[in-house]
Amino acid sequence: MPQVDLRDLIAVKRDGGTLSPEQIEQFVQAAASGSAPEAHLASMLMAIFCRGLTTEERTGYSLAMMRSGDVLDWSHLDRPTADKHSTGGVGDKVSLIWAPLMAAVGFAVPMISGRGLGHTGGTLDKLESIPGFRTDLDTRSMDSVIQAVGCVMVGQTARLVPADRTLYALRSRTATVPTLDHIAPSIMSKKLAEGARALVLDVKVGSGAFMKTRADAQELADVMVAIGLGAGRQVAAVLSDMGTPLGMAVGNSLEVAESVDCLQGGGPSDLRELVLDLAQECAAVSGQAEEVGLPAEASALRARLALALDDGSAMTAFEQMVELQGGDVASLHDPHRLHGVSETQESVHLARRAGRITTIDALDVGLAAAALGGGRGANGEAPHPGVGIVLTKKVGDTVTTGEPWVRLHHAPNSDLRAARDLLDASLKVAPE
Amino acid sequence: MPQVDLRDLIAVKRDGGTLSPEQIEQFVQAAASGSAPEAHLASMLMAIFCRGLTTEERTGYSLAMMRSGDVLDWSHLDRPTADKHSTGGVGDKVSLIWAPLMAAVGFAVPMISGRGLGHTGGTLDKLESIPGFRTDLDTRSMDSVIQAVGCVMVGQTARLVPADRTLYALRSRTATVPTLDHIAPSIMSKKLAEGARALVLDVKVGSGAFMKTRADAQELADVMVAIGLGAGRQVAAVLSDMGTPLGMAVGNSLEVAESVDCLQGGGPSDLRELVLDLAQECAAVSGQAEEVGLPAEASALRARLALALDDGSAMTAFEQMVELQGGDVASLHDPHRLHGVSETQESVHLARRAGRITTIDALDVGLAAAALGGGRGANGEAPHPGVGIVLTKKVGDTVTTGEPWVRLHHAPNSDLRAARDLLDASLKVAPE
Repeated sequence: MPQVDLRDLIAVKRDGGTLSPEQIEQFVQAAASGSAPEAHLASMLMAIFCRGLTTEERTGYSLAMMRSGDVLDWSHLDRPTADKHSTGGVGDKVSLIWAPLMAAVGFAVPMISGRGLGHTGGTLDKLESIPGFRTDLDTRSMDSVIQAVGCVMVGQTARLVPADRTLYALRSRTATVPTLDHIAPSIMSKKLAEGARALVLDVKVGSGAFMKTRADAQELADVMVAIGLGAGRQVAAVLSDMGTPLGMAVGNSLEVAESVDCLQGGGPSDLRELVLDLAQECAAVSGQAEEVGLPAEASALRARLALALDDGSAMTAFEQMVELQGGDVASLHDPHRLHGVSETQESVHLARRAGRITTIDALDVGLAAAALGGGRGANGEAPHPGVGIVLTKKVGDTVTTGEPWVRLHHAPNSDLRAARDLLDASLKVAPE
Repeated sequence: MPQVDLRDLIAVKRDGGTLSPEQIEQFVQAAASGSAPEAHLASMLMAIFCRGLTTEERTGYSLAMMRSGDVLDWSHLDRPTADKHSTGGVGDKVSLIWAPLMAAVGFAVPMISGRGLGHTGGTLDKLESIPGFRTDLDTRSMDSVIQAVGCVMVGQTARLVPADRTLYALRSRTATVPTLDHIAPSIMSKKLAEGARALVLDVKVGSGAFMKTRADAQELADVMVAIGLGAGRQVAAVLSDMGTPLGMAVGNSLEVAESVDCLQGGGPSDLRELVLDLAQECAAVSGQAEEVGLPAEASALRARLALALDDGSAMTAFEQMVELQGGDVASLHDPHRLHGVSETQESVHLARRAGRITTIDALDVGLAAAALGGGRGANGEAPHPGVGIVLTKKVGDTVTTGEPWVRLHHAPNSDLRAARDLLDASLKVAPE
């Protein structure tokens, strides 16, 4: 590629113009190679923030970032590929259930996940509460797990989307984070690099989510879907509630145990229904449901997916994946073997007022779990895998004054005051 | 000042908000102190470019830059202070005449000037073609010259407006140069730091100027005047033509000689009239004309200023200033003693067509002088002080084919083709 003066590209965007795919590629390559002065990259990030990007520019930006590193290729598999992305929420353990479920019904799921940020735990943190479970698989090992089981769940390597790593750090330092023009390409570049053909996006809305309003979440969903379609993938989005925590459990080992319940046909209904919604959307948008022997008609498709939870086939896929990734399968049936659980004790938390529960605020509950040591510290310290919160009531239930409605799982002698205050703040009731 | 996260300020501007004077001061101080990460400064420069500044923000930006370094104080002088700024043009030697003229009629002029950029020579370059003339005076020496003569003309020290030096360089590297929101505060911060109370701005319009259209020049003038008034100064602006060169001479020593003609009541009429316009505007806007014994009524004021050129008093001030700043006064009356002149020879350039001259394009003439070695090279090499161009015809004159209309002053054996081509291109004639 000939040497370009990035300032010519910056001036195009600065003046409200549209960058060609080649120009975006030059900018992203400069970021990935480390050859560009930081002042150039910083200035371009702000110009993009202020002037915005067209749909075509966002797609070009995502594809250029994707091409900055390894792009996985699954064309040798005999199954259609599928993947899911969640914008993150409190108690969001959907991936642990969804990936084995999709594998059980005939898809191949090469899922690359992240760690927790702030008050939300990440999928990798949850999986690593299974003793021995390894998330640092190379492409060859990923391939052998996916060929054997139909799903594999790993962490991001340094070779995947290196341009995003550079720009992600610089976005924070240039105050250019909160715009879909950077956020959506950052997310989508990683999903595109994973190489799955069908993709379902779980866009969370509410206090515990990145997007607080339905309109903002819908916009993020629309922008990400447009990028995915522009990149030639089959993409659908589901907006899901994150005003209250998903399921009852918040905390890494606690969420693995709840996921196992769901994979065996049990678990909280909100969690089960969301898993099925996302599986149904993905199967439908893939255009390949019939190819793997799934019914095309919606209610029949959903019944078939529910059956894979109820008949144990999704659980079998999960157990096989855990085993092949080095994890202790026995811990799935004996939660005390999960990391950190035996080091914790339980305390109940009592309701301070009576009535019908109208809200259990997701952000407050997430912060309460973090206050017990379940979040990633400001300096990136790993969360305590055993601590967390289990709700025993949900929105719509009634509660009486002094009745336990939460179990806290905490280290002995921890100070529970901050968590208890947050839980009190999270609970809103209406007189019956 | 408490430690601030510049990203909070960047976010205000990024989102289209208005920065308080304190916030702008924090940004500028961070630039001046070198404490801020370059990514922060780059991002803020682009956010300002894209979102713009209010009049109050521009004033705050200029004052904060002014305060980043030394601010000169002339309150001990018994004369009112005045200064002039030009946006730069081809053959613009006005400062060399204007400053002594203002001194001759009773003002004190502490003028700090720059060097040439691109095709325009700077005032310092012109003054330094006088053998021995020193422009690197410290404040104490400036003070003794101004007390003795009423004017002093020096270069900028590193202690004047250091924030502008940092940001000026970074603006180029971040593609954030072409906006009044940076340009006007950059200019005005330096003028404010000089400490003169009255200021006249000579905003050039046309091919040889920074501003090519009257509307753009008027906008720059309005923005700079508003900053100056906001900073409590008396400020006026004059828009002047730079479609054709000012006066007849372009080139450092050649322009000193033309300035001396004008200081003795002669010289080209366009130059003399512009000097008088700028002197009259400055005296009027200062509100202190009567204090120094000048008439308040416009035509009487102008006549009094013209007299100071015609009676030799402006020339006397210039000679005294040159002498006190170490320059060879005899060279003012014997141009062959000016730097570089004796190393040059003259060639005429002939008209290729006949008619009444409608245009002599300023940019082409400036580039022709630069082609002879009279410009600052791309790497900042000093211009040759003796070379240049002297027009012998002006717009409105008639020319016949083969008639000399320009004298080229050039080094022996220089290749004149580029200069001659540019001069041919500069000349437009209409049939009589």
